[in-house]
Amino acid sequence: MGYHIENITVVTWDNDELRIIKNATVETEGNKITYVGGNKNDGSKGEGKVGIDGTGKVLIPGLVNAHTHVPMTLMRSYADDLDLHTWLFDHIFKIEDRLTDEDVYWGSLLGMMEMIAGGTTCFNDMYYFVDRIAEATAESGMRALLSRGLTNNEDKDDYSDDYRIKEAVETFKKWHGAMNDRIRVAFAPHAIYTCAPKYIRAIRNTAEKFGTCIHVHVDETLKEHNDSLNQFGKTPVRHLYDLGLFDLPTIAAHCVHVTEQDMELMKEKSVSFVHNPGSNLKLGSGIAPVPEALRKGLNVALGTDGASSNNNLNMWEEMNLAALIHKGVRRDPLAVRAEEAFKMATVNGAKALGFNNVGQIKEGFVADMVILNFSKPHYLPEHNPVSNLAYSAQASDVETVFVDGRILYDKGEYKTLDTEKILYNVNKVCQRLFG
Amino acid sequence: MGYHIENITVVTWDNDELRIIKNATVETEGNKITYVGGNKNDGSKGEGKVGIDGTGKVLIPGLVNAHTHVPMTLMRSYADDLDLHTWLFDHIFKIEDRLTDEDVYWGSLLGMMEMIAGGTTCFNDMYYFVDRIAEATAESGMRALLSRGLTNNEDKDDYSDDYRIKEAVETFKKWHGAMNDRIRVAFAPHAIYTCAPKYIRAIRNTAEKFGTCIHVHVDETLKEHNDSLNQFGKTPVRHLYDLGLFDLPTIAAHCVHVTEQDMELMKEKSVSFVHNPGSNLKLGSGIAPVPEALRKGLNVALGTDGASSNNNLNMWEEMNLAALIHKGVRRDPLAVRAEEAFKMATVNGAKALGFNNVGQIKEGFVADMVILNFSKPHYLPEHNPVSNLAYSAQASDVETVFVDGRILYDKGEYKTLDTEKILYNVNKVCQRLFG
Repeated sequence: MGYHIENITVVTWDNDELRIIKNATVETEGNKITYVGGNKNDGSKGEGKVGIDGTGKVLIPGLVNAHTHVPMTLMRSYADDLDLHTWLFDHIFKIEDRLTDEDVYWGSLLGMMEMIAGGTTCFNDMYYFVDRIAEATAESGMRALLSRGLTNNEDKDDYSDDYRIKEAVETFKKWHGAMNDRIRVAFAPHAIYTCAPKYIRAIRNTAEKFGTCIHVHVDETLKEHNDSLNQFGKTPVRHLYDLGLFDLPTIAAHCVHVTEQDMELMKEKSVSFVHNPGSNLKLGSGIAPVPEALRKGLNVALGTDGASSNNNLNMWEEMNLAALIHKGVRRDPLAVRAEEAFKMATVNGAKALGFNNVGQIKEGFVADMVILNFSKPHYLPEHNPVSNLAYSAQASDVETVFVDGRILYDKGEYKTLDTEKILYNVNKVCQRLFG
Repeated sequence: MGYHIENITVVTWDNDELRIIKNATVETEGNKITYVGGNKNDGSKGEGKVGIDGTGKVLIPGLVNAHTHVPMTLMRSYADDLDLHTWLFDHIFKIEDRLTDEDVYWGSLLGMMEMIAGGTTCFNDMYYFVDRIAEATAESGMRALLSRGLTNNEDKDDYSDDYRIKEAVETFKKWHGAMNDRIRVAFAPHAIYTCAPKYIRAIRNTAEKFGTCIHVHVDETLKEHNDSLNQFGKTPVRHLYDLGLFDLPTIAAHCVHVTEQDMELMKEKSVSFVHNPGSNLKLGSGIAPVPEALRKGLNVALGTDGASSNNNLNMWEEMNLAALIHKGVRRDPLAVRAEEAFKMATVNGAKALGFNNVGQIKEGFVADMVILNFSKPHYLPEHNPVSNLAYSAQASDVETVFVDGRILYDKGEYKTLDTEKILYNVNKVCQRLFG
C-alpha cells in the first residue's frame, strides 16, 4: 500500500543542497518514500497505489518542532502580556501545580490537533506525565522525541532515589522506539537554574547508560546568563560542557545569550541549537545569535516553545520570524535567508532529534510529508516557492499531512483523532482548572 | 436590507476603550451598523434581515492596511533576499519601467483578492496608473485611500506643468468620494529623497486647495536619515515639518529612524505614524520606535508595504510582528500589548486614512466587519480573544468579510470578483513581464 502523487512541485533540502522539482512525481510504499523525480512518462500510473493530483500544489517534508511543551496549549492566551516573573510564578506555576495526568493527555491531543493541521509532523517535547503524552502521540500518529523535565536543586552524591529520574527511566523503557520507532525518549535536565550540577551529571550518566540524547533549556534569559557567571564563574554553555553533558547528542533550546566561544564549544560537541523566536520575543528574552550560529556551521533547528508563551504551535510563524527578525535587527537583508529558515524547520530539526531518515523528500526516507495548496492568492504569481514558504505560507493552508506513510489529515479532516471528544474533554478540563 | 448576527463574540475598540461582548447581537441596515449589544431576547429575530449564527465565532472591525502598494503583488517573491540597492535598482525598477496600466489593474485585483480573503477591508495605496487601481477598488467593493506617488527632484519655482501632479489632480477629481465615499484620494510626495523641497511644497499646496490629506514615506532607512542631516541639516521629519507638509492631515509611512523630537513634532501636527514591521525587517531597514510613539499618544497604524518586500498583504502578520518584535528587542514583555496591536490594525488605521466612521463595531458606524471561526484548535481554550487575535490568528481563518454593509467574501467564495478571470490575466501579464 502506498501513494502516487503527480504534477506536484517538490521543495526539499537534500542534505545541504536545496532541490525544487517542478512537475514531479513522488511515490511511497509502506512508510517509505520510494520515488522522487520528474513525472514518470512510462505509463505506470502508480498501479496499486492511491493516486493524488498535485497540480497547483507544493510538497515539502513535514515540519519538525524542535522544542515545545505540548500540554501547555491548555494555558494558551492565559495571563498574557505580563512580565516573566508574574506570568510564571503567579499564574502558570499555580495552574501546573493542579494539572493531572488526564489534563496533560487532553492538552496534548489539543496540541497535536493544531500541529497536524498546520503541517508539523514531528516534535520534541519536555513536560511531565510523559506516559500520557506518549499515549496521545501513539494515537495521533505523530512522530516525537519525548522527555520528562527533570528538576532538582539539592546537592548530593547519589540521586538513585530521585523519583523524577525513576519516572524518566520507566518512560524510556516503555516508549523508546515504540510505534515503529515513531516515538523516542530523551533525558531532560530542565535547565542549569533548576538542576544542581551533580544532578545534571547523574542525568547525563543515565542517558549514557541507555544510549539516548539530551534535551535542555540553555541560556534563555540574561538573568540565567548572569546568574551562571556569578554562581559558576562561567557561561551556561561552558558549565554544561564542563559537566560532560555535551558528550551525548544534545538539543539545546533557546540559546538566546550564548557567546561566540559558547558556539565554538557547541560546534565541537555537535550540540543542536534550537531557535524559538516567537517565545523569545513574546517573553522579552531577547534575540538569539542565529546568523553567527549558521555561519559557524551549527545545526540550527526551530521550535515554538509551549503555546502559553507563543501563543501557538505554528511552525510557519517561527520560520517567518527566523527569516525576518535577524535581517531587521542587524539591518542586514541577507542575515538569514528564506531557504535557511526552511532548512531549520525541516531537515535540521529531524537531525537534531536524531531521526536521521526524516525531514527530506528523498528515496528511502520515511514518508513524513505535507502538501500545501499554492493556488491561493498570497502565493501568486509563482516566482519562488521557497520565498513563498518562508514569507507567505500560513498553517491554515496545509491540505494533506502524512506521517510514516499514513495520511493523518486531509482537507480539514482528521484521520486519527476524534476531535469532538478531544474538544469536549479540553473544555471540561479547563472548566475545572480555570473555572 | 441588512444582517442580523447573533451568538457572536464582538471584539472592538470603542474609541480608547477595548470592548469584548460575548453572546452578542450585531445588526446592520444598508451600509451601517444599527445595533451592537447583548443578544436581544425580545423575540425580534431580525425580521427582514439575513440571519447569521455566530456561535464559536468572533466579529471584529475590518482590518485597515495603512500603507501599501497593491499592484506590487506582481513582484511577490521576486528577486528576494538581496540587498536593498540590488533588489530595487537591478530588479524592481526594471520591471516597473515596463508595467502598463493594464498590468497595474490586474495586479491590483490580485492584491484585493488576497486582502479581502484575509479580512482587510480598507487600504491606503501609493502607486501609479491610479485610475486603474481605483477601477479595481470600485469593482472589488473595498474601501481605499488612493494616491499617485509623486517624484521630481528638479528644483524650480513653478510645477504647474508637472504631468504627475496633473495626473494626481485628475484622479482626485474623478474618484475622490466616489462609490458612496468608499474611495478617497490623497496627494503623495513619494519621499524627501525623490522630491525637491519646492516640489513637496507645490504638492502640499495642491492638496490644501482640494482639501485632502497627504501620504508620504518618512525616514525609512538610516541612509535617508543621514542624507537628510547632511543635505538639509535636519531630520526628514523636521524637513517636512518646515515645508509645511504637516499642516495637512498626514500619513507618514515607516518612521523607522525618527527621533524623540521628531515624534514631538508629529504629535503637535497630529501626523499618523504607520508601522510596517514586515517590510522593515525583510529589507533590513530597522525597527521603528513604536513603544515611544504609543507612549507619546501618536496615532500609530499598521501597514504591509508592497507584497514585493513582505511578501504578502497579510495584516495578521503585521499585528503579530507589532505585538512581538518590540518586546524582544527591548527585552520588555510589556513593550506593545496585544490590544494595542489590534487597535493599530483597526481604529487607528481608519483614523489615519480619514475614514472617521470606520474601524469600530459601533452603532452608526459603517459596516466594515470580519467574522473569524474561533473553533479551530489554535484558538482553544478560549482564555482571551484579544491575545488570540494578535498572537494566533491567521488570515486563512477569516470566514466572512463585509464592506459598506455588503458581503464581499464568505467561506472561501468571492462575491464581487471573478477570480478565474483575474488569475488568468495575472498569469498572462507575468508571462510577458518575467517570461
